[in-house]
Amino acid sequence: MAVYTDVSADDLSRFLSRYDIGELLSYKGIAEGVENSNFLVHTSSGHFILTLYEKRVDENDLPFFLGLMEHLAARGLTCPQPVKTKDGGILGVLAGRPAAMVTFLEGMWIRKPNAGHCAAVGEALARLHLAAGDFPIPRPNALSVDSWRPLFEHAGARGDSVRPGLCDAIVRELDVLEHSWPRELPQGVIHADLFPDNVFFLGDKLSGLIDFYFACNDTLAYDVAICLNAWCFEPDHSYNVTKGRALLKGYESVRTMSADEHAALPMLARGASMRFLLTRLVDWLAVPDGALVKPKDPLEYFRKLRFHQSVRDANDYGLGA
Amino acid sequence: MAVYTDVSADDLSRFLSRYDIGELLSYKGIAEGVENSNFLVHTSSGHFILTLYEKRVDENDLPFFLGLMEHLAARGLTCPQPVKTKDGGILGVLAGRPAAMVTFLEGMWIRKPNAGHCAAVGEALARLHLAAGDFPIPRPNALSVDSWRPLFEHAGARGDSVRPGLCDAIVRELDVLEHSWPRELPQGVIHADLFPDNVFFLGDKLSGLIDFYFACNDTLAYDVAICLNAWCFEPDHSYNVTKGRALLKGYESVRTMSADEHAALPMLARGASMRFLLTRLVDWLAVPDGALVKPKDPLEYFRKLRFHQSVRDANDYGLGA
Repeated sequence: MAVYTDVSADDLSRFLSRYDIGELLSYKGIAEGVENSNFLVHTSSGHFILTLYEKRVDENDLPFFLGLMEHLAARGLTCPQPVKTKDGGILGVLAGRPAAMVTFLEGMWIRKPNAGHCAAVGEALARLHLAAGDFPIPRPNALSVDSWRPLFEHAGARGDSVRPGLCDAIVRELDVLEHSWPRELPQGVIHADLFPDNVFFLGDKLSGLIDFYFACNDTLAYDVAICLNAWCFEPDHSYNVTKGRALLKGYESVRTMSADEHAALPMLARGASMRFLLTRLVDWLAVPDGALVKPKDPLEYFRKLRFHQSVRDANDYGLGA
Repeated sequence: MAVYTDVSADDLSRFLSRYDIGELLSYKGIAEGVENSNFLVHTSSGHFILTLYEKRVDENDLPFFLGLMEHLAARGLTCPQPVKTKDGGILGVLAGRPAAMVTFLEGMWIRKPNAGHCAAVGEALARLHLAAGDFPIPRPNALSVDSWRPLFEHAGARGDSVRPGLCDAIVRELDVLEHSWPRELPQGVIHADLFPDNVFFLGDKLSGLIDFYFACNDTLAYDVAICLNAWCFEPDHSYNVTKGRALLKGYESVRTMSADEHAALPMLARGASMRFLLTRLVDWLAVPDGALVKPKDPLEYFRKLRFHQSVRDANDYGLGA
């Protein structure tokens, strides 16, 4: 939640002159997105989001991300749509960074989702999976099961400074995940980061999905597991089976999961917990003591992992009940 | 540059229902303002800025700040205008903070001002001084000459960790300022923080002034001195007399300064440098090593102070030339 790169009005006006979207009237850096710098831009023809891609984003991935948004929007999914320059491009350079303009989506993200929101997000996730089915550019998941051990070794033994015994628990879980990870389930393009702050609502109606910068090819049901983690736990860390049931029903109202996908849900949910536990742990350990900006708590995902380890089968998530 | 307090869509909708400004469509935290949390709010009737006043702002000052904006806007100055609730109020509570909505101003702040921008800001500053002449609420300047020594003593001897000898130099300057500070010049409401990021332009035309949260009663010419510091130095720390001349001419095209005000400019400019040197020093020393957010460099204002100490008289700023 930051603006890493400042942009001058002159540079922005010059950048916008490549587009057919009128005169610049105002722009504000917005406190959203942890990877890139985002500006809300108002021109005489409307509102847009300008993104400057910072170092953590690989420039080679941008055709995938921007192309995917274009592909999904063309198939009726409400997501930001890259704005084309007069000569048909969607990627430029501004303030020394790769930069793109996308359409502005109205709507608010929901701080305290209820079961209705969970149903809507499940349905939207399934629509995304289907709509992306024929998207031609591949992008392997850089944060899949095989990356977790190297990521953990990067954080190293310092994990125990966050919670005594954490490192041991992670190593034991990585052994299980690497041995039992379901690798034969249906694959496709997944969002991989569909947290509440990436889903907009107007009233109770889902109005759009944003932030496709972790999207990649991976197991479709793994994306469902990420959403169960992100949407269906309460602030006191308990799993809310009503929300889980709503999310799964919403998903299956659009795309039915196979028995194998159902059976794999607990293991996929453990993996999803591990993925966010590890990236949060790395971020947590990278921030100096006393810094103003506190990263997200990695232990939230350790607690979720503990829950998934205790699950008997997918019915415990609310499936079919 | 931050959002300190998050706001939920439900809470915001409830807050907005007190106003006659339509349905909430979207809102984004914006990366502006160092004291408060600011959101750009879009409703079915237009765009607004919502400000949540954080702890550093004294709630008792809010009628002054909001009343001043209303007063200035009513006299034709383009500045944010507080939006009235259905029952005529301008201050509410949101997320446990005092909160107000103001109108949205189009325009961009200028990263590299030229002499034309300086002339425009000088003129706008004088208009502000005249328009505020009959504003009835008083607010003493909490950051005036008498506050500088206590502020310095708060930072204490640690100033030398920023630059060896800094503390000695500050003490010697405080002796001069306290002894020679001009106390008999015309008084009035000053903006006190009219830096480039608080002045909007559309093309070359000044389109508005924002951020009145340091406004107070003080010496009018001191406000001019703050602007000379903020607008007329180059990135290499040299004073640009062409910009200074433009700013002073712009100011005096609306409000003529007296001979005493002219004569006092060098001392006022030294004081303005001291004020920003000290607050930046305090902020600098408050941030832990290695923090992600670097506060503004206090030594920028130490260099400006050195320049003002070397000035022979106000002609060196471009006056009358």
